[in-house]
Amino acid sequence: LLAILEPGDEVIIPNPSYASYAESVRMAHGVPIFVDLHENDNWSLSIDALENARNTKTKAIIICQPNNPTGHIYQEFTIRELAEWAKSNNCFLIFDEVYKDFNYSEKPIFRLAKDSKYRGNTIYLHSFSKAFSMTGWRVGYILACRKLAQEILKIHDCLVTCAPVISQYAAMAALRYQKELVDDIMIAYRKRREIALAHFKKLNDFFECAAPDSGYFFFPKILFKNSGSKNAAIDILDKAKVNTVPGIAFGPAGEGYLRFCFGRSEEDINEAFTRLKNYFNNSL
Amino acid sequence: LLAILEPGDEVIIPNPSYASYAESVRMAHGVPIFVDLHENDNWSLSIDALENARNTKTKAIIICQPNNPTGHIYQEFTIRELAEWAKSNNCFLIFDEVYKDFNYSEKPIFRLAKDSKYRGNTIYLHSFSKAFSMTGWRVGYILACRKLAQEILKIHDCLVTCAPVISQYAAMAALRYQKELVDDIMIAYRKRREIALAHFKKLNDFFECAAPDSGYFFFPKILFKNSGSKNAAIDILDKAKVNTVPGIAFGPAGEGYLRFCFGRSEEDINEAFTRLKNYFNNSL
Repeated sequence: LLAILEPGDEVIIPNPSYASYAESVRMAHGVPIFVDLHENDNWSLSIDALENARNTKTKAIIICQPNNPTGHIYQEFTIRELAEWAKSNNCFLIFDEVYKDFNYSEKPIFRLAKDSKYRGNTIYLHSFSKAFSMTGWRVGYILACRKLAQEILKIHDCLVTCAPVISQYAAMAALRYQKELVDDIMIAYRKRREIALAHFKKLNDFFECAAPDSGYFFFPKILFKNSGSKNAAIDILDKAKVNTVPGIAFGPAGEGYLRFCFGRSEEDINEAFTRLKNYFNNSL
Repeated sequence: LLAILEPGDEVIIPNPSYASYAESVRMAHGVPIFVDLHENDNWSLSIDALENARNTKTKAIIICQPNNPTGHIYQEFTIRELAEWAKSNNCFLIFDEVYKDFNYSEKPIFRLAKDSKYRGNTIYLHSFSKAFSMTGWRVGYILACRKLAQEILKIHDCLVTCAPVISQYAAMAALRYQKELVDDIMIAYRKRREIALAHFKKLNDFFECAAPDSGYFFFPKILFKNSGSKNAAIDILDKAKVNTVPGIAFGPAGEGYLRFCFGRSEEDINEAFTRLKNYFNNSL
């Protein structure tokens, strides 16, 4: 964002989506423009909504594919439409693909990188944090055409000089053993997702919940009486000692939802739901 | 800089000084304003020169104390004048103190942090890279008042979320064994400085050179015929395979100088001067 934005440039952010995008845009003196995803269609994205939000100041759009917190995987036709829309409007298309290795659906996740037509304005963000459980190592990478990469490298140099060297070695090891590591981790996540889903089914008086197609989050709609997702999250944290993220953190369209993470052990997940069951039995 | 600058704000940078300041200011949409240090007074700083550069857009000044590349340690009276000047002009005073543990002079390095009067507008940058030889770990810290720290933390969160966890543990170990580690490293640097100084004395037809009071650099004036410090540095790299940094990289006042690093082993330093001697005997 620091490499591509001038002060006042607008960046379209479909929402709900990753909470830090808007603050990062503001940090780069840009203006975040939220566009609502389709709540009633599994949080899909429509190009019409983007087109309504577009104006002469629109410089970029950030797509979390698969999306956090919804777990939605945008379909091939959406990605292709999006690419055409961005290219024809001279707009940078930023794909945050940090959950690209998480796929509980039948179809592969469609990725645009093979298509050279869109390379000039498309940027892919990849992380070692998620699929390799390496959050603390702070290492990832960007795919972009040479011209863009050179501009991004100037900013990278100003900000951090380089990624931590020990983390670069850890990342090399992760890539070398990628297949085995990711396969093992995905088996574990698939099982945790089933466990959490079974628990949510028993809490269906309190949450309306679809299982995610990707990522390690559930993003259920709040059915119990509440005064906003933020207060609900704080009350659950206070009383049940279970940490959730309020939907509003992911943009205005996230209000009325809570994000639950199943990134921890099966034992922890079971304990969390025991606490939640007690919370709903006692508090409401 | 991202936390304190609005687009168009000016930041005063005494020069020669660390090469990345100007680019970092530009990245934050600020404007770097170079003020020349006094070449003929061991690269000291005068408040009159700052006052001449100040205007209503002046938002901050960055002081590398001790200075890189000159190795100069600003004296107590300069630091006190500077603090008064910055405070009375409502200007942020940023001390980059990454070489604070390097001191080959008789006097201690004066530091302002104990004086609560200047806390509201003063920011100290500290690194584990230099005194602990931990450059690749990418870890350091900022000292600032709570109000400023909270603003800086927002930017930190947008940019990197947190310092690498393993580097934080390495930094904890460095702090625990600080005394022994730094003492040992400083004995080694003191010796390397003497070795390099003896070599430079033999090259006094080509360089005019004072030994630095701090840091691990020599910053000699070029006496041999040249077409700018950049070309001189490239020619020495090409022909002698010794890497230097051209003075111009540290701001316009650095032109006519070259920076040599004595951060490597005594063997490497001796080898570099053997190559330099051959270079000057053969090339000029």
